[in-house]
Amino acid sequence: MRDDAAILRPDPGTDLVLSADAVVAGIHFPAETPPDTIARRAMRVNLSDLAAKGARPRGYTLVLQLPEIVDESWLSAFAGGLAAEQDEFAVTLLGGDTTCTPGPLAITINMIGQVSKNKMIKRSGAHEDDDVFVTGCIGDAMLGLACAMGRLTFDDPADAAVLESRFYHPDPRMNVGPALIGLASASADVSDGLIADLGHICVASGFAADIVEELVPLSATARSLTKDDLSLRTALLTGGDDYEIVFTAPVSARKAVSIVAVETGVPITRIGRISKRNREGPAVAVRNAAGDIVEVGHGGYRHFGNGVAG
Amino acid sequence: MRDDAAILRPDPGTDLVLSADAVVAGIHFPAETPPDTIARRAMRVNLSDLAAKGARPRGYTLVLQLPEIVDESWLSAFAGGLAAEQDEFAVTLLGGDTTCTPGPLAITINMIGQVSKNKMIKRSGAHEDDDVFVTGCIGDAMLGLACAMGRLTFDDPADAAVLESRFYHPDPRMNVGPALIGLASASADVSDGLIADLGHICVASGFAADIVEELVPLSATARSLTKDDLSLRTALLTGGDDYEIVFTAPVSARKAVSIVAVETGVPITRIGRISKRNREGPAVAVRNAAGDIVEVGHGGYRHFGNGVAG
Repeated sequence: MRDDAAILRPDPGTDLVLSADAVVAGIHFPAETPPDTIARRAMRVNLSDLAAKGARPRGYTLVLQLPEIVDESWLSAFAGGLAAEQDEFAVTLLGGDTTCTPGPLAITINMIGQVSKNKMIKRSGAHEDDDVFVTGCIGDAMLGLACAMGRLTFDDPADAAVLESRFYHPDPRMNVGPALIGLASASADVSDGLIADLGHICVASGFAADIVEELVPLSATARSLTKDDLSLRTALLTGGDDYEIVFTAPVSARKAVSIVAVETGVPITRIGRISKRNREGPAVAVRNAAGDIVEVGHGGYRHFGNGVAG
Repeated sequence: MRDDAAILRPDPGTDLVLSADAVVAGIHFPAETPPDTIARRAMRVNLSDLAAKGARPRGYTLVLQLPEIVDESWLSAFAGGLAAEQDEFAVTLLGGDTTCTPGPLAITINMIGQVSKNKMIKRSGAHEDDDVFVTGCIGDAMLGLACAMGRLTFDDPADAAVLESRFYHPDPRMNVGPALIGLASASADVSDGLIADLGHICVASGFAADIVEELVPLSATARSLTKDDLSLRTALLTGGDDYEIVFTAPVSARKAVSIVAVETGVPITRIGRISKRNREGPAVAVRNAAGDIVEVGHGGYRHFGNGVAG
């Protein structure tokens, strides 16, 4: 039997790092999502937070609010999903709490990791003229959710399945984050949307950013879908749920960043630059190839119930 | 602006200790509870967990699920309640997350404290013949909730107010817990009910416990209410929400325990003894003055919606 509280002891020369995130059925994922998928996604979303800070995960606490509809078989499948992720990411369950609720299923995870002492990559370290990079590609999760909700269909169901998997089974960049220590000046994971999360970096750092829409990496499917729909392409930048890492780094680090991409096997793309905050309006400006500012919808957190283009 | 993750660094010679608890409106407290009271109670419930482990609090993460009905003035009062407790208990907010929910308001707190290295008081350390002690008095919170729900009334409203305050504004025993390091063999806070929480200690330690009902400390009001209602007196032992500390200690520590009571100003009462687990049935036996076993309802967690005697 677990105790009421868990002991945490950082390894010598490290700091512990703590993130906290909640996901609610019907808000953050469709209520009919299978329990093992819910568990795995909740873990991965929280692991991504640590990765962006350069930390390696160690353990987590889990607080569950369970509606009456949850039964033994649901719980067993949910626990199986957790166990799979614990194995894959070498994290242990440190404690938690379970209550019933008349509301929707909700899962709160506090993920604890560790990072070399004083080396956590903060949001607040970006400097003028730093490059802006992003890992992987942006927008597939938003499109995958649209598929899951029947708002976007493909002739070949395999195309939809790939996108849906990007929503349900994000791939937190656990190897990239720690490799960026000493290179990245600021970092965040892309959960609220590329524009919003880069915006957090800008606000925390006291700067602005310009990104070039054409440089934002899209998957082949996303590129083909948005070829004739420029507003959808822009929408992908605010979509969220990508769980990629957006980070800034001085120009002098370009070569080292490209080596990180090669060594981790994760594409890293330069998409823009940090600038002085000397204009009105949002901290992040999106520009087209001609250098004109592209209008984007409000970035930031988006309920999946709200309109997903498609 | 806060970062996505917080750094935790234990002071030299200490371990960090982490607890996690959720409270849901309508389950753990009446939905109409004022926001500052909700905030303060949620903090105190989590602080109590740490106190029972011998730890001193440092900080916390806060995850809020807010229904639509919550507005600016609610949030402002809630934040005021948090701020008051942060000051009183010298803890800082380390991070968190806020989401909306179609369900009830829910608050998840992970409280982080620290304790001298390897000194956390566990549930699992009780030994045969250890004494069982409890701080303060038991049952007022359950009676206070009954008052708040209109199931129990007094001629003098001040009597009800005192009991209600024991439910809404528990007094976590922050000074007692650390003073018990080196004395207590096992410890837990009384959240689920005296019988249930002592039962957790017994199960984790592999022993049983006998407690003497007449020795369990009651307030004057509770004593007068239960004078002619023995079943209510027994019910108080399973009521929960007391946020006292139940602990075990070897007989040789009796004098030192009494000194802790004097020095902290918190009453500590010896209520029973740890015994071999050589009988069927529940781990905790409640006996009357004649030594006969008293029937108790099932201990453990109790929704406030379920019948509260009164």
